Amino acid sequence: MLIEPRVLKGFRDFLPEKELQRKIIINILEKTFGNFGFQPIDTPVLEYREVLLGKGGGETDKQVYAFKDNGKRDVALRFDLTVPFARFMAAHINELTLPFKRYHIDKVWRGENTQRGRYREFIQCDFDIVGLDNASADFEILQIMHSSFKAMGVDNITIKIAHRGIFNNFLANLNISDKSVEIMRTVDKFSKIGRDKVFEILTKLTDSDSAGKILDYIEPGKDFSDTLKKITAMSGGKSKSSDRLNEVYNFMKETGIENLFSLDPSITRGLDYYTGIVYETFLNDLPDLGSVCSGGRYNNLTSVYTKKDLPGVGSSIGLDRLMAGLEELGLLNNKDSGNSVIILNMDQLLQPHYHKLASIIRDSGLACEVYLDTKKIGNQFSFAEKKGISYAVLCGTEEYSSNTVTLKKLSTRENHNKITMNEAIALIKNDIIVKNNE
Amino acid sequence: MLIEPRVLKGFRDFLPEKELQRKIIINILEKTFGNFGFQPIDTPVLEYREVLLGKGGGETDKQVYAFKDNGKRDVALRFDLTVPFARFMAAHINELTLPFKRYHIDKVWRGENTQRGRYREFIQCDFDIVGLDNASADFEILQIMHSSFKAMGVDNITIKIAHRGIFNNFLANLNISDKSVEIMRTVDKFSKIGRDKVFEILTKLTDSDSAGKILDYIEPGKDFSDTLKKITAMSGGKSKSSDRLNEVYNFMKETGIENLFSLDPSITRGLDYYTGIVYETFLNDLPDLGSVCSGGRYNNLTSVYTKKDLPGVGSSIGLDRLMAGLEELGLLNNKDSGNSVIILNMDQLLQPHYHKLASIIRDSGLACEVYLDTKKIGNQFSFAEKKGISYAVLCGTEEYSSNTVTLKKLSTRENHNKITMNEAIALIKNDIIVKNNE
Repeated sequence: MLIEPRVLKGFRDFLPEKELQRKIIINILEKTFGNFGFQPIDTPVLEYREVLLGKGGGETDKQVYAFKDNGKRDVALRFDLTVPFARFMAAHINELTLPFKRYHIDKVWRGENTQRGRYREFIQCDFDIVGLDNASADFEILQIMHSSFKAMGVDNITIKIAHRGIFNNFLANLNISDKSVEIMRTVDKFSKIGRDKVFEILTKLTDSDSAGKILDYIEPGKDFSDTLKKITAMSGGKSKSSDRLNEVYNFMKETGIENLFSLDPSITRGLDYYTGIVYETFLNDLPDLGSVCSGGRYNNLTSVYTKKDLPGVGSSIGLDRLMAGLEELGLLNNKDSGNSVIILNMDQLLQPHYHKLASIIRDSGLACEVYLDTKKIGNQFSFAEKKGISYAVLCGTEEYSSNTVTLKKLSTRENHNKITMNEAIALIKNDIIVKNNE
Repeated sequence: MLIEPRVLKGFRDFLPEKELQRKIIINILEKTFGNFGFQPIDTPVLEYREVLLGKGGGETDKQVYAFKDNGKRDVALRFDLTVPFARFMAAHINELTLPFKRYHIDKVWRGENTQRGRYREFIQCDFDIVGLDNASADFEILQIMHSSFKAMGVDNITIKIAHRGIFNNFLANLNISDKSVEIMRTVDKFSKIGRDKVFEILTKLTDSDSAGKILDYIEPGKDFSDTLKKITAMSGGKSKSSDRLNEVYNFMKETGIENLFSLDPSITRGLDYYTGIVYETFLNDLPDLGSVCSGGRYNNLTSVYTKKDLPGVGSSIGLDRLMAGLEELGLLNNKDSGNSVIILNMDQLLQPHYHKLASIIRDSGLACEVYLDTKKIGNQFSFAEKKGISYAVLCGTEEYSSNTVTLKKLSTRENHNKITMNEAIALIKNDIIVKNNE
């Protein structure tokens, strides 16, 4: 009786093509974060349920994979990288130098409804600065977002920004602070459910006068500074929060990237833990894709675990959604270099010699594989083509006895007959230089 | 009430230093595998329990993290990367080109006893060739093992090899094939429990005469070919298995790496699924560390999932044990380059300018971070030192007004006062070239 080799709903295998694409993107991101002095950390996939979900509350969040382990401990798979990071900071604060800048790119699990491109296992990519509450840190996260997209070949983005503190001042001004969580969650759905529906819900939450003012507030003005002026006025005038946002805007102008940013007071982020600036990122060529990178300032996230004050700001890239977008834009690459070599199997008896030749080629800095099977030469060429290999080295008994090889460029079928291995390597390297300069 | 920020027993946080070391090693391995034409794949962390553990058997293996998910499915966390790979091959055989060469480096989970450096969450690093049963494939795995260790700076290794088929022939010759699984498991413990204990167990399993012959069989001869002759004779003469091992030995000699290998018939690998060549790798400078890379040929692994014939051969690096060894040998590196730059915070008002300077430096190809806090300059230097940063750029009001910076090399405290940013970048790059040529 065979066992069906199936995977769980919402879970996926990644075949080489997709997995290579993913690794290339992750490498670009890691390099960008590293260029900004960010360092990688790792935390366990499995944690105490209490650590991830908090105390009390008998009923577990349905989306979380929680269970009892063999030692009867209540455990759960992490559902994001933010909560484990807060726990990490509280646990290791004495071993770390502040400000601490970290990134973490790895899988998380949520038992969500799997329709519409949502998966139960997916990768998050978080980068955060902890230990500072200032405009430099707020801005640096935005700058990294810009640099990351640029490094992936995506220049045409809009990062929409808002500030929770200014919104809170505005609600206080209207005397409706007690409803702030529900109001922000409603406003956050503006682009999904539309103006009328938002007005209806807000009217129920408050009254039609306040609902109208909230809709006014979230309407962007003609540009960043115009909108900032408007929401500052509506929130009762200049405040620490409006000063902060103004400062961040000055950083954008100084570094010449202010055109990427749009101040959009309707951005609130659903999550409760944000306390300051919040942002979402959209690919202008794919407006319906939704935000591919979101985050903000959270100044109380570690307070569940420690009394130490650890303000933070950070952002998270949804890698699955981003990769879907990059694929649509034709920006995915799955060939590491396209400069690899295959030694074809012309004569099974020469296999040990082929491995020796391959070693020499690899030692010269090129990727090289030996065709290990005994199939016909046509099959070998199509194997090479499928793997995107650029050059073939052929060595039959004639070449072997004269200590030479025949080099074939697979794209043009151009041959160099009976040359030495060193000549072949020199030809390949020269060809790569020419190709790279084209 | 605070929640204690603890992690589960056998699970670990990785702080930047350790995580960077791990990433550097993984990058070296991925590059090596890629150079041999191996491609990455990914499979889910969570699978149907039946897929991982087989049908029937009410009692779950105590080491496996198994549970019911919210949809009442019996699921489990993978305990290795081999079983999911067999499932993967059976599921995707029609989408893949054979021979298929893959690698997979990721976490697995086992609820093991946590003493003596064993963890419940750890990383495995597997590389396999599926779709071939020949000496070329057997050898290529061995060659990659050599190249991987060489790339990590470890040249002084011994790979111990044996062949299950020859051992089986030998046992058949003694008429004790029915006990082969128990005998191999006993022999596998030779280095741990010693000769006398092995003799005692083998005598109980068979008789003292057979036990003596088994101990003779597993005693290595004076060199590879001598040992091969001896076990060939004791297993009833030349066979397909002894021919294969002889062929693999010829590959080693042709590629000039035969000195790394030792034929040691006591190597059997405990696991049932091996059918041919088996091997373990030891660091000669740390003989007590145990094998850091083991594997072999398994020709029936996918037979649980498919009727297709999918012979395979592969190996697995235990990354935790290997990294412990590399650390002891002083071969771990946690600085990506040591060529990074920090812009110190001389004047809070100039923070936007500092971000602009940092952008210019990053655009030139160097890693650069801005010091984001307002601490005293001494604190800033010690921050830079802790992070292993090599160069500091200072820009106070004087430099700012003359559009210059002061460059400081942190190791020598050498200063270049009031130079342009471009001059500073040129000096850094030149210094790096000089350093790399030293």
